[in-house]
Amino acid sequence: MSTEERREQLRAALTDAAERTIAREGLAALKARDLAREVGCALGAIYTAFPDLDALILTVNLRTLLLFDRTIAAVRTAPGPGEGAPSRADREAAVEDLVRLAVAYLRFAGEHPARWRALFQHRMTTAPPDWYLREQVRLFRYIEAPLRVLRPDLPEAERSLVARTLFSATHGIVSLGLDEKLMALSEPVLRRQIETVVGALGRGLAP
Amino acid sequence: MSTEERREQLRAALTDAAERTIAREGLAALKARDLAREVGCALGAIYTAFPDLDALILTVNLRTLLLFDRTIAAVRTAPGPGEGAPSRADREAAVEDLVRLAVAYLRFAGEHPARWRALFQHRMTTAPPDWYLREQVRLFRYIEAPLRVLRPDLPEAERSLVARTLFSATHGIVSLGLDEKLMALSEPVLRRQIETVVGALGRGLAP
Repeated sequence: MSTEERREQLRAALTDAAERTIAREGLAALKARDLAREVGCALGAIYTAFPDLDALILTVNLRTLLLFDRTIAAVRTAPGPGEGAPSRADREAAVEDLVRLAVAYLRFAGEHPARWRALFQHRMTTAPPDWYLREQVRLFRYIEAPLRVLRPDLPEAERSLVARTLFSATHGIVSLGLDEKLMALSEPVLRRQIETVVGALGRGLAP
Repeated sequence: MSTEERREQLRAALTDAAERTIAREGLAALKARDLAREVGCALGAIYTAFPDLDALILTVNLRTLLLFDRTIAAVRTAPGPGEGAPSRADREAAVEDLVRLAVAYLRFAGEHPARWRALFQHRMTTAPPDWYLREQVRLFRYIEAPLRVLRPDLPEAERSLVARTLFSATHGIVSLGLDEKLMALSEPVLRRQIETVVGALGRGLAP
């Protein structure tokens, strides 16, 4: 096995181990020493596979984003309007799509609480690298599709900004709603709140 | 000075010191040892003034909530409709009020970033005490007033739930928007996003 192959193998083993720890005990429990012990390498070897622990965490978080991507891609959404101005029915379908996407986000957060939280808890000392940001931005595209139906008048750049804001609003509802110490809402209650509020948001966005 | 008076004095000194540390360096920088040194008491004396560090942090967070309460109470909002069903103008004023409250929240977070963040970062081992929860709930009342105009049909309990969800949505927009590593939007851009999205939310809520 070449040095590069061995490094790749170590990288995969460390990512698996870190993912398990984060999923089980949360990001705060992640320690380089424990990881080295778990995969059976020297502490220093971690830094031949990753420049630092931040980079390892980002690799785990990228997996979480890809898992979410598969979840969200499976959400049944409207095919989108054909040519010409969107009809009233198109707009209603787009509002429903926004609600469905938000509910899928709630479900994902509920099913993978620790991994999902790690996406936001991880505060790095530098900005995330491009490959990570690209994946984040890709996920906003799912929101941009119904938004294009609701607000065909918006310039592309403004629409992608509004898509991010819609995501942030949904994230706020989900994260405070699932926070046991703060709001403590059950998932069915939270789901109905999302239907009410994200539904209102979609309806109110259409001109 | 009685023992109780001395304890009250120590309590105030510790709260001041903790508030300064949180405002300057954030919640993570708060250490009992440093606090004791700063107020000139023995480490153990802290625990005669507060049952634990959690209780001290909650006292600081209560001050932050009260400061926010003063800010939000100064937001100029519509006097609310008189008798009878709200008119279209009443509803428009209520939507504007929701936007104004959300913008005030953004401004508060921007002016007191560390203290504001501490309100949400602080994860306690037990649920917050009633006096703290009461103050949180009191703040939702500001959102309930315009909501009453927009959705007079909702039962009281449902309305207060929707008010919380509106707060969560706004909090999501503000907190991800101000997060330098995640979204990194400037305050004027964020402000316009709030106007677009919270405005849409308010309009979409009216039946």
